[in-house]
Amino acid sequence: MNIILLSGGSGKRLWPLSNDVRSKQFIKIFREETQAYQSMIQRIYRQIQSIDKDAVITIATAKTQVSAIHNQLGNDVNISVEPCRRDTFPAIVLATAYLRDVQGVSEDEAVVVCPVDPYVGDEYFQALMDLKVQAEKEEARLVLMGIEPTYPSEKYGYIIPEDKNAVSKVGTFKEKPNIETAERYIAQGALWNGGVFAYKIKYVLDKAHDMIDFTDYADLYAKYESLTKISFDYAVVEKESDIQVMRYNGDWKDLGTWNTLTEAMKENCIGNGVLDQECKNVHVINELDIPILCMGLKDVVVSASPDGILVSDKEQSSYIKPYVDKFVQDAKFAEKSWGSYTVLDVQEESMTIKVTLNPHQRMNYHSHEYRDEVWTVTAGTGKVIVDGVEQQVKPGDVISMPAGCRHTMIAETELQVIEVQLGKSIRASDKQKYELEDEF
Amino acid sequence: MNIILLSGGSGKRLWPLSNDVRSKQFIKIFREETQAYQSMIQRIYRQIQSIDKDAVITIATAKTQVSAIHNQLGNDVNISVEPCRRDTFPAIVLATAYLRDVQGVSEDEAVVVCPVDPYVGDEYFQALMDLKVQAEKEEARLVLMGIEPTYPSEKYGYIIPEDKNAVSKVGTFKEKPNIETAERYIAQGALWNGGVFAYKIKYVLDKAHDMIDFTDYADLYAKYESLTKISFDYAVVEKESDIQVMRYNGDWKDLGTWNTLTEAMKENCIGNGVLDQECKNVHVINELDIPILCMGLKDVVVSASPDGILVSDKEQSSYIKPYVDKFVQDAKFAEKSWGSYTVLDVQEESMTIKVTLNPHQRMNYHSHEYRDEVWTVTAGTGKVIVDGVEQQVKPGDVISMPAGCRHTMIAETELQVIEVQLGKSIRASDKQKYELEDEF
Repeated sequence: MNIILLSGGSGKRLWPLSNDVRSKQFIKIFREETQAYQSMIQRIYRQIQSIDKDAVITIATAKTQVSAIHNQLGNDVNISVEPCRRDTFPAIVLATAYLRDVQGVSEDEAVVVCPVDPYVGDEYFQALMDLKVQAEKEEARLVLMGIEPTYPSEKYGYIIPEDKNAVSKVGTFKEKPNIETAERYIAQGALWNGGVFAYKIKYVLDKAHDMIDFTDYADLYAKYESLTKISFDYAVVEKESDIQVMRYNGDWKDLGTWNTLTEAMKENCIGNGVLDQECKNVHVINELDIPILCMGLKDVVVSASPDGILVSDKEQSSYIKPYVDKFVQDAKFAEKSWGSYTVLDVQEESMTIKVTLNPHQRMNYHSHEYRDEVWTVTAGTGKVIVDGVEQQVKPGDVISMPAGCRHTMIAETELQVIEVQLGKSIRASDKQKYELEDEF
Repeated sequence: MNIILLSGGSGKRLWPLSNDVRSKQFIKIFREETQAYQSMIQRIYRQIQSIDKDAVITIATAKTQVSAIHNQLGNDVNISVEPCRRDTFPAIVLATAYLRDVQGVSEDEAVVVCPVDPYVGDEYFQALMDLKVQAEKEEARLVLMGIEPTYPSEKYGYIIPEDKNAVSKVGTFKEKPNIETAERYIAQGALWNGGVFAYKIKYVLDKAHDMIDFTDYADLYAKYESLTKISFDYAVVEKESDIQVMRYNGDWKDLGTWNTLTEAMKENCIGNGVLDQECKNVHVINELDIPILCMGLKDVVVSASPDGILVSDKEQSSYIKPYVDKFVQDAKFAEKSWGSYTVLDVQEESMTIKVTLNPHQRMNYHSHEYRDEVWTVTAGTGKVIVDGVEQQVKPGDVISMPAGCRHTMIAETELQVIEVQLGKSIRASDKQKYELEDEF
């Protein structure tokens, strides 16, 4: 099966665990039995591979997520990188061209597109395989998954099929309705539109050539910034008369708010926390290394990260966005392709961070114009290169790097470093990257 | 007025703001108008001085609190330091001897003893002056303050006076009763025993000489460890037949739990926090530098410090102790006589802390047997002395101190330093202190 996973925007609804650099799909809160915690993207990736070990999975995403994806899924994962955000039609076309031109998939094969963030059981992936098989039959140009509604939701668009068969022609699409209208739709056999569909590669590329002047993937990538922002629904689905919908009635949860996300948690507390006996329907997700004690709470979610602490009534948590928009701050924790960093302390003219470099990983060779830095190695071994001079390092070693000096570190074992940044204007953007000479 | 403030034990009921090294009286949460936040001890000390500018205030406390007291009240405050904890009778005798032998107060003067932690209005201090005047009249050997009960509390001992006059003889004392019994006591005119009383210095020293073989303050201090643990109530009050009680009906609050403490807060949030419109009777005290967002909560206290985070229903918060007893950890924030430190990061073989040294203050000259340390100066100026060699320091300077090396720092302006500790067994107890040569 060829599958394109759409790994979408940042989203602050799960603050403080999601922020401008970490989308909700990277939060590690799921686990089976006593295994390690997984994020949504790790969970869905593993699920696909366990259902179809030969699946060709391509993740369509923005540049800003590439580090986190490599960090969580390894370096062998296929990523169709959007150079900038241009909505779903350009993104899906780019990923489809990537499949043909980079992965060498035939234009006659079908591809399944689905978002990276539904919380689903294994039967969902069987349904994706069925969707692919249906698309290959070419009974219609596009085959959508229609999710059997479990309640009259106002959050989703609805698909009204022409009949109640497992596969049927689509009658009409309906925008997000109010509850009464949703009830009426459901009585008519309407299905939720979860943004899951399948098509033959040729179909979407032909559509794209009608609208965009490009030759192949590389050409499309090069001119991506000049493309018009337009959704796949608007550019393709709404204009296509020949669409089928296939019913899906398995587990499907949209974990977009703390209220829904905590429903999918297997235990009440992830991380360092204690709940007293009086707590009812309380969930704690704690990424800090200090304990959280909850006493006598009902229907509350507590979530803590280096970015902040949320304590919210579960229902109320869906109104979080305007509050979080007011928190003007840089993210205090970020996963990078080489490891991660956590901000420990911010002062007027200094910032202290903890850097963890994964084994055999390296940072970019870089310099800063407006700040000095001091590294104190606290664990692991590796080497640092400062202005072209290489040096082995071990715990206790200190490296001082004045502004302008070029530097990087390369881990042998996992390397932990306390970095003190000093200067009057400390900004993430103050970074110049350089190529390293071959000998390093 | 001579006054002994009893500054008691650590107490974990206000965790995470109180801990083994920081008692509740040092938490800064009170303020008038837009002034800086004050702790209980700062507030009561200031209140006494504003009512009686000539008051001779002596704080009776344990060694472990001396640093915090100097940090909050300055270095000129009189402290009667208990070398170890021996309950209230030895502590009050020691402080009384300190008044006579160190402060030079006459044995014929009266002294008022009161705990450091009631939350009271200025009229309370007028009542203390009245208590002292009453004690000087020598109508009785001991004069207690009896607080007019505002509800039938099970938390306090009761004093039953012989009549309902402003000053009367004490009939009997009653242990903490249940509610029904408390109601009966109150109907009889009973008063709360808040542990506030006055006596002539000679009276308590005579009592002490009957029970302890000592000559003066220095002698008592030297043999303090050998004294029997016994409370003042048990050793003196319960055996004394000649006691008066003076009624007090002003404001008096015992802020021993989060529930009662938050009632005394002038605003709903201290520190970095946001409460949505749906929050009712919610209080946030945040000593971390990350924001706390509260949504849709009712009757909840949220309190955060480098030691941990409490989220509790207010009523339920009084049952905190057994939970906190289970958190085995060193305090992550401490006030010292020279400034303060905050633990930023703890790893298996390293610990990173932020040290703030107040202007013109210095640490002890010391070394560590089992850990190396690295200082990176992030703000301020001063000097460091390492193995007898002095060096001026400024932001960006790095000092490496291998195990065994003697070191200290001395602030000119407020000095901020990131200290990385490295070693297999990092413990607060691994510290040897030395005298510094005179030239430094």
